[in-house]
Amino acid sequence: MAKELKELTSRAENYSQWYSDLVVKAGLAESSAVRGCMVIKPYGYAIWEKMQRALDDMFKETGHVNAYFPLFIPKSFFSREADHVEGFAKECAVVTHYRLKNNPDGGVVVDPDAKLEEELIVRPTSETIIWNTYKNWIQSYRDLPILINQWANVVRWEMRTRLFLRTAEFLWQEGHTAHETREQALEEANKMINVYERFAREWMALPVIMGRKTANERFAGAEETFTIEALMQDGKALQSGTSHFLGQNFAKAFDVQFAGRDGKLDYVWATSWGVSTRLMGALIMAHSDDNGLVLPPRLAPTQVVMIPIYKGEEELRRMVAEMETIAAKLKAKGITVKIDDRDNVRSGFKFAEYELKGIPVRIVIGPRDLAARTAEVMRRDTLEKESVALEGIEDFIEKELADMQEQIYAKAVKFRDSMITKVDTFEEFERVLDEKGGFVLAPWDGTTETELEIKERTKATIRCIPFDTVDEEGVDMLTGKPSHRRVLFARSY
Amino acid sequence: MAKELKELTSRAENYSQWYSDLVVKAGLAESSAVRGCMVIKPYGYAIWEKMQRALDDMFKETGHVNAYFPLFIPKSFFSREADHVEGFAKECAVVTHYRLKNNPDGGVVVDPDAKLEEELIVRPTSETIIWNTYKNWIQSYRDLPILINQWANVVRWEMRTRLFLRTAEFLWQEGHTAHETREQALEEANKMINVYERFAREWMALPVIMGRKTANERFAGAEETFTIEALMQDGKALQSGTSHFLGQNFAKAFDVQFAGRDGKLDYVWATSWGVSTRLMGALIMAHSDDNGLVLPPRLAPTQVVMIPIYKGEEELRRMVAEMETIAAKLKAKGITVKIDDRDNVRSGFKFAEYELKGIPVRIVIGPRDLAARTAEVMRRDTLEKESVALEGIEDFIEKELADMQEQIYAKAVKFRDSMITKVDTFEEFERVLDEKGGFVLAPWDGTTETELEIKERTKATIRCIPFDTVDEEGVDMLTGKPSHRRVLFARSY
Repeated sequence: MAKELKELTSRAENYSQWYSDLVVKAGLAESSAVRGCMVIKPYGYAIWEKMQRALDDMFKETGHVNAYFPLFIPKSFFSREADHVEGFAKECAVVTHYRLKNNPDGGVVVDPDAKLEEELIVRPTSETIIWNTYKNWIQSYRDLPILINQWANVVRWEMRTRLFLRTAEFLWQEGHTAHETREQALEEANKMINVYERFAREWMALPVIMGRKTANERFAGAEETFTIEALMQDGKALQSGTSHFLGQNFAKAFDVQFAGRDGKLDYVWATSWGVSTRLMGALIMAHSDDNGLVLPPRLAPTQVVMIPIYKGEEELRRMVAEMETIAAKLKAKGITVKIDDRDNVRSGFKFAEYELKGIPVRIVIGPRDLAARTAEVMRRDTLEKESVALEGIEDFIEKELADMQEQIYAKAVKFRDSMITKVDTFEEFERVLDEKGGFVLAPWDGTTETELEIKERTKATIRCIPFDTVDEEGVDMLTGKPSHRRVLFARSY
Repeated sequence: MAKELKELTSRAENYSQWYSDLVVKAGLAESSAVRGCMVIKPYGYAIWEKMQRALDDMFKETGHVNAYFPLFIPKSFFSREADHVEGFAKECAVVTHYRLKNNPDGGVVVDPDAKLEEELIVRPTSETIIWNTYKNWIQSYRDLPILINQWANVVRWEMRTRLFLRTAEFLWQEGHTAHETREQALEEANKMINVYERFAREWMALPVIMGRKTANERFAGAEETFTIEALMQDGKALQSGTSHFLGQNFAKAFDVQFAGRDGKLDYVWATSWGVSTRLMGALIMAHSDDNGLVLPPRLAPTQVVMIPIYKGEEELRRMVAEMETIAAKLKAKGITVKIDDRDNVRSGFKFAEYELKGIPVRIVIGPRDLAARTAEVMRRDTLEKESVALEGIEDFIEKELADMQEQIYAKAVKFRDSMITKVDTFEEFERVLDEKGGFVLAPWDGTTETELEIKERTKATIRCIPFDTVDEEGVDMLTGKPSHRRVLFARSY
């Protein structure tokens, strides 16, 4: 491991390689034999499970329930909503047959007699199949709202994939809600982007900027897309969650009408919202360093690791006994602990391994510590060591974990804030993007033409029109046309 | 609802229709627009979530971790293990293309230029892709055991489907473990069938018979399949979970060798084990009655419902205030409660609805109850009502729920035991199957030929060779050849 650790490319050397190395070496995920699909390894999945649990609790607190809809969607469903088919149905996995048969030459071949009448698409997102279902569930305003979430796998055929950030298959949750009025649906879409923002902040220690997408960057079929945008350490933005106000588009496409309080028929108002295993990529990239993963304690599967330094079995036994006493006290506080008493592994190797895996707190006890009734406590985020009395160490650790959660967030906020630059000219815009990176707040004339030309020339896109943007008259940095507010640009993943 | 409830076919009239009615009317699941795929509705999914949580905790207690492997499996993988391809790879969803394109005539068509070089199969089970992955994870005995579980969706193309019991897509968990020795793998397979038995007993209140499958009924690629077999109220058996000892078959197929403690290379020993949303079918069919669902309290998403009977808003307010006090006390005990104070729904309708949904305990408070400081408490399993003092009612309810969990189990055990018949002749065997149903313990000569002939003639199969079978010399009821033990026959789902 110590050797492998050395092979972790540094961020300065090659950020992209650092990320890929880290994901694999920390045991989070790896590429599979199936092009573009990943294997999420146990350690990575344990972090994802903690994210899932926290998000699921937040969804339930806000009145949502879970359900499950089919993996497959009839091809014709995609043609129903015109914008949706443009945006989605193209790069996807198509099921055309339902049987294999033995090949006389060995192996199996697709049975040509088992061709489906209508091809099935492996869901890239589930609006169509869900709205086709809601049609049967909604007759009157009394059936509304429907507040459903689904945890599922989805597939979007991607040619250039990166573990967690962009894979053909990924795991996600997708909320799909149905409402009586435009206002209620808009309120829901707003509520959920705020839930995502709170989750990112409180659990992932990730500061994000909330805002609206431009028409060009909106979800296919949405009237309004809200987004949370995070900043990675290389100065690139990562779209981390979106919430869509779908208007009546899907209700019209699938003919979902309800009898209102006034007895009149109207189309149902909709939202959808989702976050995915992409959040794992955001989590890894936002906080980690050249030694490995840095995890906010609330999402760390193991929060504390204890390592004894000893000579001989007798000493080991005494130390492990001491550690078990501490572990019991920590567990009573809901803190997850591991004691690594492996005898055939060098301590240095263990240290490197747990730094790589981002265990928030490391406790080392050597013979002198034991004699002095102290332990050496190291924090993963700062790598700072401190000698702490064994008596009451559980309270110290508890505070340390809470402090670390806050400090990791504060550090990320500081970095993010330092990486927001206001510019007014296109030359400055290009220079900031090339030399500094990060978010750039610049005036924009509000047209898709200008947005696309800027993207073409700089690879930067409008990440969002931040919710907290203020009216500010100016001129578009490219066209010189009037601009009424600054919008947030960045190069992104 | 009262009207809809009447439409619930009785079990005596048509058991199969009763089941289908119940699943739909209780809001558990429904058929989807995609042939053979179901929509699991929020109430059904809430029960499944409770099952998942309990099982997941049990897997973790026994040392397992979760991970996630790709949805797709390259076609060629299935040919690697000869028995496996025979048993599995035939009826499955085959992905042949990865792109759609606009049809000049409108809609979308499959892009013929986007044909995959090798077709991908939507996983019907994941042994092949997982063992292909384990190959890279295992070099030495130090990498063993691997104890991984996956929660996932799988697809097996089924022509005749029934909600929960047999659907093209279903949700399940699949454990895949790798071991150093034959004994360790066998022990694991045994341990997990026992975990399933305990889950069925403690959570589902479902008594099952554990045993080994015959060679003919084994999982494709397994050397030994253990099973838990439950009995439904119509006397048919339902295979509810299986655990397979895979020997070295998959390790050989995917060339997974490890350096042992003696330094020599050997193939890795494997198990796999799974339960699925089929358990929902077992749960529903095992306990429910002509009024609707009967749920063991531990799996009921809502354990207690409170309904006020009142005249006027003032009385309603006083009752709801009283109910909220009780609800708070119940919640403090970890009991889930709902107060139904809907003003526009008749009480009779509410009663029918909650019986249909199987809420374990119903508390009704009317004006007289309130004056007398009592409430009417009804248990869903017995439909018995009792007047209970409000003072301390939370303790009464807590005991009632625990008692109900036990009683539902005891009732199922009694029924199951009454439906196990020992027979010695084929005439008796046929008569019991036709007139009584249930499990039949009969002597068998141990050959697949006889097993198949019995199946052909009676539609009954050997569900298992029970673990607790004793040696008993006899003669096969069909062939007259020697039999060394009785095996468990039944007609099954």
